Amino acid sequence: MAKTPTIREVAKLANVSIGTVSRVINDAVDVSPVIRKTVESAIEQLGYVPNAAAKSMRMGRSRTVGCILREINIAQLGGFVSTAQNVLTESGYSLLIANSEGRRQREIELLRSFSSGQVDGVLMGPYTPIEGEFEDLLRSLPVPFVMIDRDQPKWCDAVYADHEGGVYQATSHLLGLGHRRIALLTGPVRLHPGGARVRGFMRAHTERNVPTIPELVVSESFLNDHGYRATSSLLGMAHPPTAIIAGGIDMLPGVLRAIRTRGLSVPGDISVIASGQNDLSDLHQPPIGVVGWDQNEVGATAAALLLDLIANGKREEPRRVIIPTNFNPQASCMPPRKPPG
Amino acid sequence: MAKTPTIREVAKLANVSIGTVSRVINDAVDVSPVIRKTVESAIEQLGYVPNAAAKSMRMGRSRTVGCILREINIAQLGGFVSTAQNVLTESGYSLLIANSEGRRQREIELLRSFSSGQVDGVLMGPYTPIEGEFEDLLRSLPVPFVMIDRDQPKWCDAVYADHEGGVYQATSHLLGLGHRRIALLTGPVRLHPGGARVRGFMRAHTERNVPTIPELVVSESFLNDHGYRATSSLLGMAHPPTAIIAGGIDMLPGVLRAIRTRGLSVPGDISVIASGQNDLSDLHQPPIGVVGWDQNEVGATAAALLLDLIANGKREEPRRVIIPTNFNPQASCMPPRKPPG
Repeated sequence: MAKTPTIREVAKLANVSIGTVSRVINDAVDVSPVIRKTVESAIEQLGYVPNAAAKSMRMGRSRTVGCILREINIAQLGGFVSTAQNVLTESGYSLLIANSEGRRQREIELLRSFSSGQVDGVLMGPYTPIEGEFEDLLRSLPVPFVMIDRDQPKWCDAVYADHEGGVYQATSHLLGLGHRRIALLTGPVRLHPGGARVRGFMRAHTERNVPTIPELVVSESFLNDHGYRATSSLLGMAHPPTAIIAGGIDMLPGVLRAIRTRGLSVPGDISVIASGQNDLSDLHQPPIGVVGWDQNEVGATAAALLLDLIANGKREEPRRVIIPTNFNPQASCMPPRKPPG
Repeated sequence: MAKTPTIREVAKLANVSIGTVSRVINDAVDVSPVIRKTVESAIEQLGYVPNAAAKSMRMGRSRTVGCILREINIAQLGGFVSTAQNVLTESGYSLLIANSEGRRQREIELLRSFSSGQVDGVLMGPYTPIEGEFEDLLRSLPVPFVMIDRDQPKWCDAVYADHEGGVYQATSHLLGLGHRRIALLTGPVRLHPGGARVRGFMRAHTERNVPTIPELVVSESFLNDHGYRATSSLLGMAHPPTAIIAGGIDMLPGVLRAIRTRGLSVPGDISVIASGQNDLSDLHQPPIGVVGWDQNEVGATAAALLLDLIANGKREEPRRVIIPTNFNPQASCMPPRKPPG
């Protein structure tokens, strides 16, 4: 590889001191526009790259924000990531994303690595329940962070969708169609969207005086193979559900695969509702009903909160922003088939 | 936030010098196992996080690999990312991903930021054509890199799929069914998968002595709105195509949306072939034919090449690994409708 140009060469070409080059690089205010321009031209001409590690140590900032996601290739996350990035870019920050695969050990390692100088702030939606040691780690993070779609811990800034309200609407719709055996697949109750969805599901049943059926509430995992496995076993029951709410943003493919594997059709044999609109829910025949929310708003709000924390430090009161959800039934729900006889 | 413990406190608790703690942190070989264990216990007990920026300056490495992708939420990229990450994790590296949105300026900024100490190596599939200034920037990168699904520049390590062979098979299949007006939508010819797909498409036509129709080869963009716009204008032609090959890994949704908007059906009105299998191609009714390749193999191979470059430096001869493609017609292709009359 070619020899990297040095700050000395930049100073020589611009006919200024090394100190002046350094002040330009570090955005010091006491540099005249003319000198700044000359130095910047020399930097560009030589292709000089300031040493970011050295710069970040001097400046105490990396101009980078880290984001920890369970999986990065969830179709639904596109809007979140691109909007957050646009907001950050406007303030001169890059967004770096790491995939935790929902593993506790990776989430801890990523937080440690991020918090030791690599980034200036963190956006995250951890899969590890926020309690005990993990909560202690969060409390001692030396960089600010904002929680994405988590309502715990209560003491930090967070942006999350109203999954309780959305699942309440979806469940009410199915109950209204006459369904009495509705299944809900979602993540652990102690992780925000899991617990909120279960509450919305229960509330809709309670209001209509319909008992919920415990074995139809599979509150185990958000991971994408869960949709397939849970649906397969639900459909294998002596009295299978007549409707399924896929309560996780990448659960729909597995649910649909399991339904197809058994030769059943939507909505003739079973009604289906997904969490979050995406290409698959739109382009499936029939289009799948969704509990939706604005991922762009989640991304923009979370990035703005984080930039404010980076610039102005922690506030007295944590800010909690709840993004509304809506329910669009599309064409994937109909009244349940009458049982034979 | 809680006060961050210092290296001094670790040294005091372990009853060793600060230099010894530093040697343990930096994996020095001259530390006895007993001392190492004592220091590690103290580090754990205090929750001490070494300053990564300082450590990486001393060590010249960040134990992090950067990856520049056009979009991170393309369903197809899941296998690539998780496999690359697993290979990197085994060697103690984290993978950080940045979204360039295919913008030249962002690709340049990310490369500059990555190459100035933030990461030890880069995986990338740039959207900027590799020539002129951009190629110069690549030549002067102080960290090693591996190209993902790009065959340029010829002087670096690269892993790419045989898109020419895959599109050749797909085109031959459509010609064999009797199609004479086949459209190919793909990216710019000078960017690897674009040019390779056009070559495969042309070769299949030439071998069967069927002329290609220039206005049906839309070699403009891989960006995902291109699929919708290009398909809409093709379907609006006086003599529209009877088959479309979506030559980009996130082009299928737009193609299907445009077909549905005009009230047409697949394959009765038009045959469709996608690039890369995913949930949408699988679960669409009918399932969509795909030119596929093993994204896990791309990820594992690219990560292994990069780790080797990081550990052992650049080799005399660049390594070029071509991943085979295959064609699965599924149920989305049939002979073209006879024109009326």
